Amino acid sequence: MKIAIAQLNYHIGNFESNQNKMIEAISTAKNQGADLVVFAELAISGYPPRDFLEFDDFIERCWKATEEVAKACIDIAAVVGLPTKNSNSTGKRLFNSAAFLIEGKIQDVLHKSLLPTYDIFDEYRYFEPNTDFHCVDYKGKRLAITVCEDIWNLGVEDLYRIKPMDELMKENPEVIINIAASPFHYEQAERRKRIMKANVDKYRLPLFYANHVGAQTELLFDGGSLAFDNQGKMVGELNYFEEDLQVFDIDHLPKEIKQKEKPKKIALIHDALVMGVKNYFQKLGFKKAVLGLSGGIDSAVVMALASEALGAENVHAILLPSQFSSDHSIKDAEGLAKNLGSPYEIIPIQSIFESFEKELKPHFKNLPFNIAEENIQARARGVLLMALSNKFGYILLNTSNKSESAVGYGTLYGDMNGGLSVLGDVYKVDVFELARYINRKEEIIPWNTINKPPSAELRPDQKDSDSLPDYEILDAILFQYIENRKGPKEIIALGFDEALVNRVLKLVNTNEYKRYQTPPILRVSTKAFGMGRRMPIVAKYLS
Amino acid sequence: MKIAIAQLNYHIGNFESNQNKMIEAISTAKNQGADLVVFAELAISGYPPRDFLEFDDFIERCWKATEEVAKACIDIAAVVGLPTKNSNSTGKRLFNSAAFLIEGKIQDVLHKSLLPTYDIFDEYRYFEPNTDFHCVDYKGKRLAITVCEDIWNLGVEDLYRIKPMDELMKENPEVIINIAASPFHYEQAERRKRIMKANVDKYRLPLFYANHVGAQTELLFDGGSLAFDNQGKMVGELNYFEEDLQVFDIDHLPKEIKQKEKPKKIALIHDALVMGVKNYFQKLGFKKAVLGLSGGIDSAVVMALASEALGAENVHAILLPSQFSSDHSIKDAEGLAKNLGSPYEIIPIQSIFESFEKELKPHFKNLPFNIAEENIQARARGVLLMALSNKFGYILLNTSNKSESAVGYGTLYGDMNGGLSVLGDVYKVDVFELARYINRKEEIIPWNTINKPPSAELRPDQKDSDSLPDYEILDAILFQYIENRKGPKEIIALGFDEALVNRVLKLVNTNEYKRYQTPPILRVSTKAFGMGRRMPIVAKYLS
Repeated sequence: MKIAIAQLNYHIGNFESNQNKMIEAISTAKNQGADLVVFAELAISGYPPRDFLEFDDFIERCWKATEEVAKACIDIAAVVGLPTKNSNSTGKRLFNSAAFLIEGKIQDVLHKSLLPTYDIFDEYRYFEPNTDFHCVDYKGKRLAITVCEDIWNLGVEDLYRIKPMDELMKENPEVIINIAASPFHYEQAERRKRIMKANVDKYRLPLFYANHVGAQTELLFDGGSLAFDNQGKMVGELNYFEEDLQVFDIDHLPKEIKQKEKPKKIALIHDALVMGVKNYFQKLGFKKAVLGLSGGIDSAVVMALASEALGAENVHAILLPSQFSSDHSIKDAEGLAKNLGSPYEIIPIQSIFESFEKELKPHFKNLPFNIAEENIQARARGVLLMALSNKFGYILLNTSNKSESAVGYGTLYGDMNGGLSVLGDVYKVDVFELARYINRKEEIIPWNTINKPPSAELRPDQKDSDSLPDYEILDAILFQYIENRKGPKEIIALGFDEALVNRVLKLVNTNEYKRYQTPPILRVSTKAFGMGRRMPIVAKYLS
Repeated sequence: MKIAIAQLNYHIGNFESNQNKMIEAISTAKNQGADLVVFAELAISGYPPRDFLEFDDFIERCWKATEEVAKACIDIAAVVGLPTKNSNSTGKRLFNSAAFLIEGKIQDVLHKSLLPTYDIFDEYRYFEPNTDFHCVDYKGKRLAITVCEDIWNLGVEDLYRIKPMDELMKENPEVIINIAASPFHYEQAERRKRIMKANVDKYRLPLFYANHVGAQTELLFDGGSLAFDNQGKMVGELNYFEEDLQVFDIDHLPKEIKQKEKPKKIALIHDALVMGVKNYFQKLGFKKAVLGLSGGIDSAVVMALASEALGAENVHAILLPSQFSSDHSIKDAEGLAKNLGSPYEIIPIQSIFESFEKELKPHFKNLPFNIAEENIQARARGVLLMALSNKFGYILLNTSNKSESAVGYGTLYGDMNGGLSVLGDVYKVDVFELARYINRKEEIIPWNTINKPPSAELRPDQKDSDSLPDYEILDAILFQYIENRKGPKEIIALGFDEALVNRVLKLVNTNEYKRYQTPPILRVSTKAFGMGRRMPIVAKYLS
């Protein structure tokens, strides 16, 4: 039997597009002699459909689209992920299901048992866990069809009380099929391979694993679908960050794939972010981006990534100098735009700033220049960028990084604006790495941008290091708190200064209100700000 | 035996404050002869602690604070809600627990079985469901101690497969204790009473129910804790929207409470919003608010509510007229500030707008006046209000209503700014009702503000009705889509115009990106924008 793994880029709620893509993949697979095509989890709706799942209308459209895909299944079968209604009188109203399509019809529907409800996952919000297990017989083979998390419960400290594959093994299946929605972070591909291999090592069956590829707002799916023989050898690895379809003859599986050199973290982040920007614009139907180019490193890296994603000609750089901008800032910003060949314009903000100052003078009661005036500058820039966005239909790209977002070193309604945050899950030390990676072949980002000390340039001679510790130290503390969920005592025990740790953690917690209002952030780490990190605002923990 | 229900206003993560409040309540209850004090669910941490639950440090602090409260339990017992560690090797790492405190110690810990994971609830994100049931014996009575949702699974179409009280009944308890975190919406108090009565009707036991009171950012807890005798008669109903403590002798329960007239929806919303604003400021340690007062109804209602919550002298109204503002707008806004006795200032935005226009002229390429220029005005106002907020430490109150937030009729980084959205869960038709309710005794909001046609005043002679249908119709369609999760066909079948329904639903979905970046919204309905409604941004459903 020949099994095709179809790794596609779906669009949430775009049933026509999703179903047509799948029908086309079925046709391609058939031409390559496949007997079965495996699509991803909730492929028909796109993942994650979130609260659209609460609409009967949405669920019915999912079923109808699956019926359309089934019609294409003549002389070939398919496994398709979709939400289905729970007909029992108790439990949540839906199942997260895998439909087995054959002879033009939906022949069987199997449900997911283990529902990830942590980090960015909310599956128990919608779905009832399955407790009823059966295999599917097809062309003389017995298939154990499983959905994502169902084969991730293998260790000694398990998150769930049951192991679905243990249940299915009672029926003596000969193949494991897993349809998945496993989003990217920079360690996830390795983890995925380990877990798949652990399944084969335990159950001694060949395994075919189909993942999503493509960006769904903040969630980035890197693809990398997998095939294993029953000896635990990896015999197939689909492409990363692009659609792919590969066919495997399960009775004559290819030799083990020689492990390529493991990609570097920074290269993975780079590819993920480029895909994230590209898909955000494509799926929303936009072509052109605008951003404020300061001459600093964050906006430079965003500009370079966006140019790769959208084409340099579609990225409009706006230089917004003030009286506090240094000469090199304008020069460095211009240098980057010229290196890329992107359009750029200069709009000075001094006269606008002065008009604000003039109107506010009687109300500010002679109080000294402080954060209020600094923020007026950042917000005046925000207004200008949004004006160009509104006038020309550009999407504003946000340029904040994870370090400054963590400690609130940014202006709400100013430089924190944008439709999408490109670097909001990238610590400053990694932004520098990204810049060097972008420059790996030639100078795209002026080296001066990378080498000079970071500054917000909102008052004379300001430097980030006036208010913040060295990024090496700051980022290390933040990583322990955000990614590793360590408390103050545990972080101090790692050797960091006590007063500094307490100050940083307090900054993170008291700036929750700012992060609440920031754009969606492309997720590349195990713990990104946004849907996967949910914090109270009016709280008093460590603050 | 005498049971005290302690209904307190907790502060999330503020262990010292929470534990001291509880120790004080224990002392008060003891003075009134109580044998047992019942506190709310997760009282020790405040509800909802959200991802703070992922920090071991946080969980340890919860335990220590509970031990401190236990020390006060001499000659009296208490039931306290807290998160505890799951010591089993499988399952989530925490339980949502009720500790039984007596003789200075934590004597027993019982766990919640049914974990709400829908709307604003995320409990299965953190907690393992309990499957092991036992009662607690105290002073010759056997107590069935349950946590919130554990007694809500009574109907024919149940959300969960087990009924914890059915399990506990096997041990023949004599009293039901329920510790809860049941947030307000304008129908919730009635629902709560129905469910409590249904439990007593089924199990024939007296029931003592302790709820939270107070606001936790967007979530508003209205209190209204309850006591029932074993005949299903309500014998105790604690105050709404304020702390309360009442003691009941379970062997001599008082007579049934005569049902007062059911409070009107608009009065409930009013009281909830006032509490929401008040607690937001109190718990963050702020005193003063600022808002833009346009002369229109939304900002007028916010101003009146904030004055009730914070004192009129602490609410700074800023009038920000442009060349498109009508004379009556300024007059109406001034009238309101004078009626309330609040400070107000006028800052015209025309010269700032012109300075933006001047700088943008070469970049706008002679394109006609459109949404870009309208938004510049709204954003210039946003900058001015935030400047005053930053200079004087005021919190900016957002004045958007649910109708405009739904269809995206507002400017991101402009009038959508603010630390807290007061009316974001109140449809425009209810904003009018609120205004009339505020004026029920005397004219506080000038009647002209209430009676004139709504306008954003961003271009000459603009009216809301130029772009939007009548609010009566718009709000009815939105209610079906947002609160009732009806799809287009179902809404059209109710008699609404097909083209209009499709247009409105498309507006709601395509404006998800704007709502993603708005302030937290005080929740008063069954489905508010914010943490309880989670939608994809880059999606194509009904859009």
